Amino acid sequence: MLLTNIQVATMEGEGCGLIPDGVIALRGGRIGWVGPHTDLPDDMAGQDSRDLGGRLVTPGLIDCHTHLVHGGDRAREFEMRLEGASYEDIALAGGGILSTVRDTRAASVEDLVAAALPRLDALLAEGVCTVEIKSGYGLDIETELDMLRAARALERHRKVRVVTSFLGAHAVPPDYDGRADDYLEEVCLPALRAAHREGLVDAVDGFCEGIAFTPAQIERVFEAAQALGLPVKLHAEQLSHLGGTALAARHGALSADHVEYATADDARALARSGSVATLLPGAFYTLHESQLPPVAAFRRHGVPMALATDANPGSSPLFSLLLAMNMGCTLFRLTPQEALSGTTRHAARALGLADAGRIAPGMRADLAVWDVGHPAELSYRIGFNPLHQRWFNGEIA
Amino acid sequence: MLLTNIQVATMEGEGCGLIPDGVIALRGGRIGWVGPHTDLPDDMAGQDSRDLGGRLVTPGLIDCHTHLVHGGDRAREFEMRLEGASYEDIALAGGGILSTVRDTRAASVEDLVAAALPRLDALLAEGVCTVEIKSGYGLDIETELDMLRAARALERHRKVRVVTSFLGAHAVPPDYDGRADDYLEEVCLPALRAAHREGLVDAVDGFCEGIAFTPAQIERVFEAAQALGLPVKLHAEQLSHLGGTALAARHGALSADHVEYATADDARALARSGSVATLLPGAFYTLHESQLPPVAAFRRHGVPMALATDANPGSSPLFSLLLAMNMGCTLFRLTPQEALSGTTRHAARALGLADAGRIAPGMRADLAVWDVGHPAELSYRIGFNPLHQRWFNGEIA
Ligand SMILES: [Zn+2]
Ligand SMILES: [Zn+2]
Repeated sequence: MLLTNIQVATMEGEGCGLIPDGVIALRGGRIGWVGPHTDLPDDMAGQDSRDLGGRLVTPGLIDCHTHLVHGGDRAREFEMRLEGASYEDIALAGGGILSTVRDTRAASVEDLVAAALPRLDALLAEGVCTVEIKSGYGLDIETELDMLRAARALERHRKVRVVTSFLGAHAVPPDYDGRADDYLEEVCLPALRAAHREGLVDAVDGFCEGIAFTPAQIERVFEAAQALGLPVKLHAEQLSHLGGTALAARHGALSADHVEYATADDARALARSGSVATLLPGAFYTLHESQLPPVAAFRRHGVPMALATDANPGSSPLFSLLLAMNMGCTLFRLTPQEALSGTTRHAARALGLADAGRIAPGMRADLAVWDVGHPAELSYRIGFNPLHQRWFNGEIA
Repeated sequence: MLLTNIQVATMEGEGCGLIPDGVIALRGGRIGWVGPHTDLPDDMAGQDSRDLGGRLVTPGLIDCHTHLVHGGDRAREFEMRLEGASYEDIALAGGGILSTVRDTRAASVEDLVAAALPRLDALLAEGVCTVEIKSGYGLDIETELDMLRAARALERHRKVRVVTSFLGAHAVPPDYDGRADDYLEEVCLPALRAAHREGLVDAVDGFCEGIAFTPAQIERVFEAAQALGLPVKLHAEQLSHLGGTALAARHGALSADHVEYATADDARALARSGSVATLLPGAFYTLHESQLPPVAAFRRHGVPMALATDANPGSSPLFSLLLAMNMGCTLFRLTPQEALSGTTRHAARALGLADAGRIAPGMRADLAVWDVGHPAELSYRIGFNPLHQRWFNGEIA
């Protein structure tokens, strides 16, 4: 099957690797060939072809940081805060992350799947083909596993590839208040091992912050992950500089995420370890942050930057990856090319995927076809979806 | 026809006027009755009914400030700016508002309609039933008229109500550089009179700013409008305080729009004149503004606040009214109730419409049915569309 009459943003080389009049040959769910129309090998020219009317084709988008599986929502808390309620008022009314933990614990795997599907559908409608999903609202062994089971189950309900991260080290639950180390020993690490035994874990994540876990505590989790042969990543330097980024780099992390408070030294460390800096402008926007991530330092040191929704019920109820791209440009001053690299090529790297995020022979045929004339249009408009078609595994999804 | 098993946000009285278990009776494109299920009059109970499964029904949303009809886009300029181009570079490359003027002049009415339809569809997909559309990228007589003809023509292509504003006083075209008064005399006012003769004008708008027109110049436009019996409104106090809001209030304007730099005195003046303050967070976000509109003063003086997309190719390429609501809450600290009033009841008032924006007997049966449990959810999520059904003029659209 040939896709013809297309502009192709291969995301290889410079400037989105744009091929103005290209052809993509699909072969068994993979890319067989891609190049300018004029270079199409003779032995391919006879295949069935589909004329896509000059549209732009990009790799299927990759949302490499989400908390898509969770119970409940926090709309009432959002409203109370805007009506002037204090944090104490909201806590007294049962709000905050613990309300999501309560709602998630109360949900069955089927409930969690049903609640996640509309959120997932919003992403897929914008050309997303791969979604990372974290645990971290269970904070007990069984619910952490249930969240990951629900994440895996989504692949059976939709044409999507799900990559999981175990995030037992997301928060200390109330019954372990002041006993974070006990929580790690008695709940988080046993949950990790049990989830791994069940094949539920693709990577291990943590939240390194004053309100969550110290670098020393995160290091215990990373060591346990690496003993199981699992890659690591970290929520680091979101609200303050605690050294999580350097720790992540020391452990060869796939990515350090948020990183608003990362320094030039941290950027050098990420460059050396080959880790991705994953930027999450939805949380920056929602929390009214003012500290910008060190984009210039990431550029200078060649740190690949990914962009993701951080879709979660509290700090980033954002379910549009195109909007994350616009926010990356508008709030963080990324270029539209960097924004598109951040949701394709670099997002794949943040998930350790070698077969996605670029259009090249041998890569998965996960593609997005857009009604736009230029790749920059994907980041330029706000709240507008120009998707024409989504291809998953070589078929229209 | 009865709509049953619904929560109704009537937008009458306090707190969205919520009726938890309501019924709406439709009669010939209008609301015949609305109230709690238990109060349904006996003579109505026998009608055909449609069970909406406990969903929330609001008035069809109203986007009361857009520049939806225009030629071209400015994605390349967006990209150049983020790649470090200066304003001179962009002007030399043919960018800025004049590039939109050039592209709009080059387009036929049919071209303008075709380009506007996908933008309009994005709004309708979120439950919008009424859209205001301005001229202002022609800046010559024929193109100003063509823009308004295109705006009117949209009503023949989609189930939507279009309200037009003549915005000849949007910018001074290059051939009148330094001769704004001549432009008004020779182009703007003749265009206004011609457009009015053709029935193309519902209201008259202007842009009062250092880079556009002075209050004295706007006043000439307002006087011409009022001589024709047309209501006025104004882009005022967006980038500086020039006195446009006070001028608008003196002329009994329907609304003063943007108003970031409005003062407490301006708020008092708007309250006295019964004008709406239309807030446009999409432009605030895109332009990285820091001056917040005086929301507390508007509340204190009882100025109704509307919210709109300001959909335009330069300063606000925003095509989601739900996102404008989220931005109103997140950036301007409106409550979710204020945000919903701003896109229903108060938006109707900003357009001078007495038959839309509320659910009450005699009002148009333009409705939005949502898959949410609480009105605050409409503002809480970012880039997520929970619309279940749109009713226009008493029918599913
Ligand atoms: Zn996160
Ligand atoms: Zn405007």
